[in-house]
Amino acid sequence: MNALSNTAFECCVTRVPMQHPGDMSGIERLFDQGAMAPETVIAILGKTEGNGCVNDFTRAYAVFALQVMLARRLKSTPEEVGERVAMVMSGGTEGGLSPHYIVFSVKPSAQRLENGQKAMAIGTAFTRSFLPEEVGRMTQVEATAAAVAQAMQQAGIASVDDVHYVQVKCPLLTSERIAEAHARGQAVATEDTYASMGLSRGASALGVGLALGEVDATRLSDAAIGQDLTLWSGRASASAGVELTRNEVIVMGNSEAWAGDSIIAHAVMEDGIDFPAVGRALRAAGLPIDGQLPESAANRLCAVLAKAEPARSGRIRGNRHIMWDDSDINATRHARALVGGVVAAAIGRTDLFISGGAEHQGPDGGGPIAVIARRA
Amino acid sequence: MNALSNTAFECCVTRVPMQHPGDMSGIERLFDQGAMAPETVIAILGKTEGNGCVNDFTRAYAVFALQVMLARRLKSTPEEVGERVAMVMSGGTEGGLSPHYIVFSVKPSAQRLENGQKAMAIGTAFTRSFLPEEVGRMTQVEATAAAVAQAMQQAGIASVDDVHYVQVKCPLLTSERIAEAHARGQAVATEDTYASMGLSRGASALGVGLALGEVDATRLSDAAIGQDLTLWSGRASASAGVELTRNEVIVMGNSEAWAGDSIIAHAVMEDGIDFPAVGRALRAAGLPIDGQLPESAANRLCAVLAKAEPARSGRIRGNRHIMWDDSDINATRHARALVGGVVAAAIGRTDLFISGGAEHQGPDGGGPIAVIARRA
Amino acid sequence: MNALSNTAFECCVTRVPMQHPGDMSGIERLFDQGAMAPETVIAILGKTEGNGCVNDFTRAYAVFALQVMLARRLKSTPEEVGERVAMVMSGGTEGGLSPHYIVFSVKPSAQRLENGQKAMAIGTAFTRSFLPEEVGRMTQVEATAAAVAQAMQQAGIASVDDVHYVQVKCPLLTSERIAEAHARGQAVATEDTYASMGLSRGASALGVGLALGEVDATRLSDAAIGQDLTLWSGRASASAGVELTRNEVIVMGNSEAWAGDSIIAHAVMEDGIDFPAVGRALRAAGLPIDGQLPESAANRLCAVLAKAEPARSGRIRGNRHIMWDDSDINATRHARALVGGVVAAAIGRTDLFISGGAEHQGPDGGGPIAVIARRA
Amino acid sequence: MNALSNTAFECCVTRVPMQHPGDMSGIERLFDQGAMAPETVIAILGKTEGNGCVNDFTRAYAVFALQVMLARRLKSTPEEVGERVAMVMSGGTEGGLSPHYIVFSVKPSAQRLENGQKAMAIGTAFTRSFLPEEVGRMTQVEATAAAVAQAMQQAGIASVDDVHYVQVKCPLLTSERIAEAHARGQAVATEDTYASMGLSRGASALGVGLALGEVDATRLSDAAIGQDLTLWSGRASASAGVELTRNEVIVMGNSEAWAGDSIIAHAVMEDGIDFPAVGRALRAAGLPIDGQLPESAANRLCAVLAKAEPARSGRIRGNRHIMWDDSDINATRHARALVGGVVAAAIGRTDLFISGGAEHQGPDGGGPIAVIARRA
Repeated sequence: MNALSNTAFECCVTRVPMQHPGDMSGIERLFDQGAMAPETVIAILGKTEGNGCVNDFTRAYAVFALQVMLARRLKSTPEEVGERVAMVMSGGTEGGLSPHYIVFSVKPSAQRLENGQKAMAIGTAFTRSFLPEEVGRMTQVEATAAAVAQAMQQAGIASVDDVHYVQVKCPLLTSERIAEAHARGQAVATEDTYASMGLSRGASALGVGLALGEVDATRLSDAAIGQDLTLWSGRASASAGVELTRNEVIVMGNSEAWAGDSIIAHAVMEDGIDFPAVGRALRAAGLPIDGQLPESAANRLCAVLAKAEPARSGRIRGNRHIMWDDSDINATRHARALVGGVVAAAIGRTDLFISGGAEHQGPDGGGPIAVIARRA
Repeated sequence: MNALSNTAFECCVTRVPMQHPGDMSGIERLFDQGAMAPETVIAILGKTEGNGCVNDFTRAYAVFALQVMLARRLKSTPEEVGERVAMVMSGGTEGGLSPHYIVFSVKPSAQRLENGQKAMAIGTAFTRSFLPEEVGRMTQVEATAAAVAQAMQQAGIASVDDVHYVQVKCPLLTSERIAEAHARGQAVATEDTYASMGLSRGASALGVGLALGEVDATRLSDAAIGQDLTLWSGRASASAGVELTRNEVIVMGNSEAWAGDSIIAHAVMEDGIDFPAVGRALRAAGLPIDGQLPESAANRLCAVLAKAEPARSGRIRGNRHIMWDDSDINATRHARALVGGVVAAAIGRTDLFISGGAEHQGPDGGGPIAVIARRA
Repeated sequence: MNALSNTAFECCVTRVPMQHPGDMSGIERLFDQGAMAPETVIAILGKTEGNGCVNDFTRAYAVFALQVMLARRLKSTPEEVGERVAMVMSGGTEGGLSPHYIVFSVKPSAQRLENGQKAMAIGTAFTRSFLPEEVGRMTQVEATAAAVAQAMQQAGIASVDDVHYVQVKCPLLTSERIAEAHARGQAVATEDTYASMGLSRGASALGVGLALGEVDATRLSDAAIGQDLTLWSGRASASAGVELTRNEVIVMGNSEAWAGDSIIAHAVMEDGIDFPAVGRALRAAGLPIDGQLPESAANRLCAVLAKAEPARSGRIRGNRHIMWDDSDINATRHARALVGGVVAAAIGRTDLFISGGAEHQGPDGGGPIAVIARRA
Repeated sequence: MNALSNTAFECCVTRVPMQHPGDMSGIERLFDQGAMAPETVIAILGKTEGNGCVNDFTRAYAVFALQVMLARRLKSTPEEVGERVAMVMSGGTEGGLSPHYIVFSVKPSAQRLENGQKAMAIGTAFTRSFLPEEVGRMTQVEATAAAVAQAMQQAGIASVDDVHYVQVKCPLLTSERIAEAHARGQAVATEDTYASMGLSRGASALGVGLALGEVDATRLSDAAIGQDLTLWSGRASASAGVELTRNEVIVMGNSEAWAGDSIIAHAVMEDGIDFPAVGRALRAAGLPIDGQLPESAANRLCAVLAKAEPARSGRIRGNRHIMWDDSDINATRHARALVGGVVAAAIGRTDLFISGGAEHQGPDGGGPIAVIARRA
């Protein structure tokens, strides 16, 4: 695919429910019914029902099942599918969230939109594999920024203002990886495996912010990662998983070079209960909301992508939350459940891609929310 | 207190944050500052930060700390305080919910409201102690209905239409109680002690529904309890505890016999994401909402009381939820987190009394929501 | 394979560590080094690091990864591998337990042992798929008993006294499966998904007990399953998983028809801290123990397979345990951690196949323990 | 009490089961039956059934219930009881561990033991309250060392060789306390509340090691705390709780100045499955063990006190453990369950005081184990 050629491309975004992390039946049905061709799939996001933390194997399981299934369809190998299709599984469907896949397919379109109108554009890029000691540090920030630029170019998005969502899948540190670094005499950013997820997400988000001009390069440093929360991207969404060692970047935006009726927009939630921000994102994507989204508009909604994060202050608008002090349920799990409820209140449905761990992704306690919709 | 005398009474509803389940500092400050007198306190509801399930000791801890504190203030004993002040702790502050107490105090008022205006009224009543074989069965339903009528009379609420929330604290079956029934040759409704909590809550809720004319008496039977979910009260909130063998009923409504500027209203959420119902409850209590409650209105909000329950169908508006299949986090915990998010989306704050276990309390997957507010 | 032919077979039991549920590297290394041929593998047991309860997807992930890997090696398909190799993943490595696979391979042997000496024998059989309403009921009991007999015959084990361990993998009920039965107007044994695991394991164990003559057929009934704990097998180990709908049976014992230096023995733990029973099982397998197993003997140990279950009485030798009352950690998780500690105390290592949920598998609170060792 | 006077004292150590964290019935029965006088109680240790982590309120609840009960018995106030009786609740009864109190009472004895024989001695001391920024740092180390020396003097233990167990209860950092320090411009040792428990325990243990000559003072520093695991005490047991801000120290040893038939001994477990070390501790306390403790010896056992900690290497004797990577169950919970199983294997009972978080308390992955027994 080369979006800069004369041929216009069209991005189709389809939500597919899943019964369990290895359930391929929904996507296979789309293939079998001819609604989508396997070879047009360029990215798959998924909300799987694990804990979204260190030992959440639902993500790797879903990725593996997708790769094996697509390899069979494409007469390829799982490894080749892994190279071809970006897959980002976000674990954790707390509260009322519903496990689902979001499949991004791209196909040539007869013609571009008229009058310089833009349609949704998408591009992907990968960094090289990181060593354990590079995770959560400036090396990861800079490599991510380079990958974002590369993905924008691939997507034919000329201006950073037209980028509305950048999904990054990034690695984490396990006890094994930490030991491997130690064996080579290298110190890692943290020896706490769970904390490594936050640092990896934070570094990735800062990389996005750097690429999009949202953060000041001179303020970035190893020390700032995970610490200086005034540095953030309003369009980054990073998700850490044990199943990879590199960063995988998916840039979504709008571009004149693309066709079709899909459009993407975003807003930034200032805190976990910023309901008005959800409304702003919906309206920016052309979906009128008055209380809850009316059915006519809901039918045009393709996907909601948002980040959730407990405020470090331990408070939401002055009232104490218990997310950080709960040793039975991880803080990100509480945060996803909360934001899932707030967004569902607006949308009226629960198959929402709410991803936890919003370090440097929106202001402390808040996060970006993107909406993909079809034009009326 | 006799609300039917010439003297009018005024009910004051005060939210008090808590730092931990034994934290009395907030309530003691109110006493010390003269904002409230200990002897006017008739009931305390609390959202404590336990798991809300079997081994949630935050509830008993909070009750014990409240009783010891009030005994000291009232120069009484914890046991006497227990007889005098109704205390209902609901465990679980998942998602963004904030632990807090809601203190109900009643004091004489100089005069009633003019022109037949109504103010918030509150009344309490107790059933007799139930035998183990009566718990979760029609005897409990009928005795609860009688207690609701008695509490209404005490509160001076003439019409069932003026009742907006009925909190019931009900017993459960322990192994000892079941054995005692067996020794007398009696069968109990269930031999599963955890399941008995649901049946006791369900029978209590149906008793409220019966008293308020919400359920058809001819459809009620032992077999219907816990099974026929089309029977429900839109104003009942039941909570089961091991420490009692009778039902304790707190009726809240509006009455001409009461004074002050507090008012209560309610609505019924059809499912866990029924945002419009939250808006209806707020507007019914005189709080204008457009998106999120504006600050001027939020300042007049005294308390929100709602029930949360996972839909037995395993779905919310057609999309699968994972609450019942999650063996790490109990289903009621997911449900509280979800409803907490939906209600916070409307209210803009998180100190909400969202309680789990809504058998026959609202439709399957939904539940009642009551709002107490001060007049503008 | 037909163990009754003139050719003797030899069973090789190999423990392989796993880094995560999809980690095939250990087994692939054995293949690559020629230590084992893929086509000789007839069964794989695994202890995976999920919660061992309803939403434990580590089991299905491991099975899928094994099938894909073996299919590649055998130039077959995952489905065919599933038909050929019995795979039983037991979720939950609480306490110090170490995730690992136990690979059972069978190859022809030059000659039988002399003087009627017996060597370890193994056989497998599958039941048909069960309908949801058959799970946890007599249909499952009887089908399992038939499968045990079939597997014994396959293994060439003539006497039930020579059977020392019968591993059964059995299905559970999910909300989806229950709804499917309801849609056909069928009632299931329980509507509680977690409880269905216990009933399925219990029915499977009673099926083993029936086949081995350990339980009286006249005392068996739907009502006895999960209730009459005086009925049990001292050699059954059942494990429930969401990934299958039939029972898969692996019978292990000793037989003159087999060759090689492996031997299996078992004992029954009377409760979770029955350390002497662990010693008896070790000694019966020819491993001398004095305190902790000495290194020379530990080197001859091939695998330990045991069941763990919380006593329903809520007590261990008179002292209260909290397993049943803990709403944060499931009871079986506590039980596995406990028994894992007790067995590790004897063995001095932690890669032990301790499986939770021992309903009708040993006495209440106890369970079978089998030891596979090489002769000195 | 002054153990150095001519009068000898006798320490009585009594295990008391608890039904829940507020259950005083067992201890009150001892008082009512005259088995123990309330005024002789100098310390109470308790294993309560919380999660043992940040939001474990069972500890504070138990302490509060004990203080209120003793205040009633002693015609005192809870606050005065708090000053008079050292109380250390350790949360977490994972695996098969049984919730219980260990009550230490001291009364004058008619005469000392003959021939310079020693009996169990006990002494207590408190540090001042720590500021949040002092927790987990050298200030806490040094204050703890001073308190140990003070408690030894009070107990009449002349030599550090006669000290066998030092229980320290220490504070942790909550979000609130961290914010308070930040408001004063102070940085804390960690902003991770859960991590603060480990640093506080570690600093406390190093304080014990410093006092007992087990660690080299010149190697101690803020940086070494929680990092240099080659520094450890083989007799320290530290437990962190949200309910206090100072360190409370209880020193236990043997002394000629004391009388009675109780004796204390200890050993150090090298890892979590060091069963032989358990045997050494038992034998050192005069309890013969062959496999499991015989009943005659078990009757003379008064208490077992041990620490549990996951090895940082992520391995136990080469096999991977999953404690650090489990985001559903905290690592210390796994470790307590494991060590509880190993110790129960030796003792044959489950009311064992196994406390989690053994930073600098024994070697990495291991920990001290102390046994209190009556002479034969």
